[in-house]
Amino acid sequence: MELEPRRAIADLRELDRLTGGAGGARRVCWTGEWQRARAFLRELLGEIDGVGVEQDEAGNLWATLPGELDGTVAVGSHVDSVPNGGWLDGALGVMAAVEVLRAAAVDGARHSVALVDFADEEGARFGRSLFGSSAVAGTLEPGSLEALRDAEGRAIRDVLAEHDVDLHLVGRAAARLDPLIAYLELHIEQGPVLEREGVPVAAVSGTFGVERHRFDFTGQASHAGTTPMDMRHDAGLAAARGALAVEETARRNDGVGTCGLIRLEPGIPTAVAGHAELVVDLRHAQAEQLAAMLSETRASMVEAADEDGCTVSGSEIWQIEPIAFNDRLVGAALAAAGTGRTLASGALHDAAEMARHVPAAMMFAPSTRGISHAKEEDTPEADLARAIDAFGRLAARVLRGEVLG
Amino acid sequence: MELEPRRAIADLRELDRLTGGAGGARRVCWTGEWQRARAFLRELLGEIDGVGVEQDEAGNLWATLPGELDGTVAVGSHVDSVPNGGWLDGALGVMAAVEVLRAAAVDGARHSVALVDFADEEGARFGRSLFGSSAVAGTLEPGSLEALRDAEGRAIRDVLAEHDVDLHLVGRAAARLDPLIAYLELHIEQGPVLEREGVPVAAVSGTFGVERHRFDFTGQASHAGTTPMDMRHDAGLAAARGALAVEETARRNDGVGTCGLIRLEPGIPTAVAGHAELVVDLRHAQAEQLAAMLSETRASMVEAADEDGCTVSGSEIWQIEPIAFNDRLVGAALAAAGTGRTLASGALHDAAEMARHVPAAMMFAPSTRGISHAKEEDTPEADLARAIDAFGRLAARVLRGEVLG
Repeated sequence: MELEPRRAIADLRELDRLTGGAGGARRVCWTGEWQRARAFLRELLGEIDGVGVEQDEAGNLWATLPGELDGTVAVGSHVDSVPNGGWLDGALGVMAAVEVLRAAAVDGARHSVALVDFADEEGARFGRSLFGSSAVAGTLEPGSLEALRDAEGRAIRDVLAEHDVDLHLVGRAAARLDPLIAYLELHIEQGPVLEREGVPVAAVSGTFGVERHRFDFTGQASHAGTTPMDMRHDAGLAAARGALAVEETARRNDGVGTCGLIRLEPGIPTAVAGHAELVVDLRHAQAEQLAAMLSETRASMVEAADEDGCTVSGSEIWQIEPIAFNDRLVGAALAAAGTGRTLASGALHDAAEMARHVPAAMMFAPSTRGISHAKEEDTPEADLARAIDAFGRLAARVLRGEVLG
Repeated sequence: MELEPRRAIADLRELDRLTGGAGGARRVCWTGEWQRARAFLRELLGEIDGVGVEQDEAGNLWATLPGELDGTVAVGSHVDSVPNGGWLDGALGVMAAVEVLRAAAVDGARHSVALVDFADEEGARFGRSLFGSSAVAGTLEPGSLEALRDAEGRAIRDVLAEHDVDLHLVGRAAARLDPLIAYLELHIEQGPVLEREGVPVAAVSGTFGVERHRFDFTGQASHAGTTPMDMRHDAGLAAARGALAVEETARRNDGVGTCGLIRLEPGIPTAVAGHAELVVDLRHAQAEQLAAMLSETRASMVEAADEDGCTVSGSEIWQIEPIAFNDRLVGAALAAAGTGRTLASGALHDAAEMARHVPAAMMFAPSTRGISHAKEEDTPEADLARAIDAFGRLAARVLRGEVLG
């Protein structure tokens, strides 16, 4: 069973032509453009003999080709994108999966194979990412989503209903787990590491854990002209100190730490900030180091606040533990890649949700200049071909029942 | 000639009752509430024998009591406020000036005395502060204001017309300078210094110069999870470093320096900032030190950008040189205060515009906790009384021709 990477790349280009272009991909989930991408996907799937296509209760699309053995191997990713997104994020994995189905339909596969196109991986419209995969994994709580509205004020429940999804029944998608024995996903790295190392394809060992916290500094707003430096309680300076401390903590622990959002109040040139909000995103592949980063960060924020005569309070926005993929599948992915390179993913993926219940693994193709979620997102075509080919070899071995016991 | 501070304070309370209250002062210039404050002021002036009231071409209100000598001494401030402002900012000086007129009407004054209530000191609606006083001083360029609109999109020209001000004729208000031989203004400090020192009233030596600059840091936006720390170009970190450098520069030069506005792009928790905007406001009473602060700040910004692999460009938003008040008037104000305390004003005032052409001086009453531009703005009543009394003694001496040669 061998894939034809050129065909998958041509499908990607056609998808980009239909739902992307000069401004970037516009396949935001729960929109007409997303449905257009899905229609193209259904068209491609309709050309493969023996494949049955269904949408589950969470809006995920499943295309199954039955095999002779019990147990289904799922391959997939997501066709949805962020606004002005890239042509490869998610789409690469879906088109590679189409190619796996095509090859399996021709050559035969011992296990059943199911392509899955997860709904709303990006969370671009309502802010809840990994929507479809977390519904399958049983970690989506519909009650917590009830209040979500899009930028135009439309309720998530009403919008989803237009796409045949009843928000209160999304949990039923978990039944899709039952037949699965493995989940495999090809994705772009969305970071600069593989390009820097000249590696065209790598195995992914798991996903980083994330601790995302908000720190609120409270000082005293005062006049920029009349308040002597030694009488200030400048919450903005405290937040700046906090941001620099996050960088040090991340470097010391060999993780990543980012302050992508800082907001001052009143936020005008002529006033010392009386309040500052700093959002910190800490990530590490190891739970222990991630916990250390969080506790160091909390201490740094208190120190920073003290230095400027402010107080600080922290609150968790979101967190997820590091998730390790299945050892055997990662080993097989490494062998299929043939580059000797394994890395942990700093970005989250549907595979992280799936890995809670099913042996899972991913492979990465490099990202030019590490850019993603932007129209400039790209990967050299030779690397794409190499990655699709390697992914096909991994899928073939798993489908033949050679990898998992 | 002696003022009755209790009466001025009662007028201030009545003004607050009419146009302020629990939410703070609401006398935003070019609104009905401001007109209501002006109507109350006209009412008070109408009760003083021999006073003629006029509005000039820039919307400033002048109330003149003729004297026997050539030359007019102007006393005043502004009744307009920021939204949810304080009861004393501007209003204190106007009500003290009313009290000066009352005393002069009873006791007689050798020079003519003119109360002036400057229009739009705050610039709260259209963003141009010191509107009326700069029109008198000849530093207002109507052409540069043409494009200004308020938050509701109304053009400044149309709004001013409703208040009998033709934007293109505001320059004619400069004729009001001709008879003036001095300008005196009582104001609250709007800072915490006098309260800390327990000083109820002080002479003001001049106003700080201001250098307000915007620094734009450019790095590379990238994914918070997938970009290793050593491959980042984090414009937000560079801006944070820049903000801390401004604090050091201000302390080293014994001035004040503030970063009240910092804005990151894309400004989301999951992205390293590719761009950051930092607005720096530097102030000092001495031109030489202010220039040193600016050049140190520029160097710090380049250093900060370098450290994070970013570039930076700076642009001037606004600047004004330090303005020294008239030595003789400042000396007389110091003697009238009787507290031995002179300080420079970190905030700008109409007096700074007037001082360009006319001998000018100010006196300050303390501000409780240094708070201004807020409904909490206050001054202990005993200090207000002491300050109004001292201002009356200064005005009396100047009106008798004892101070200026």
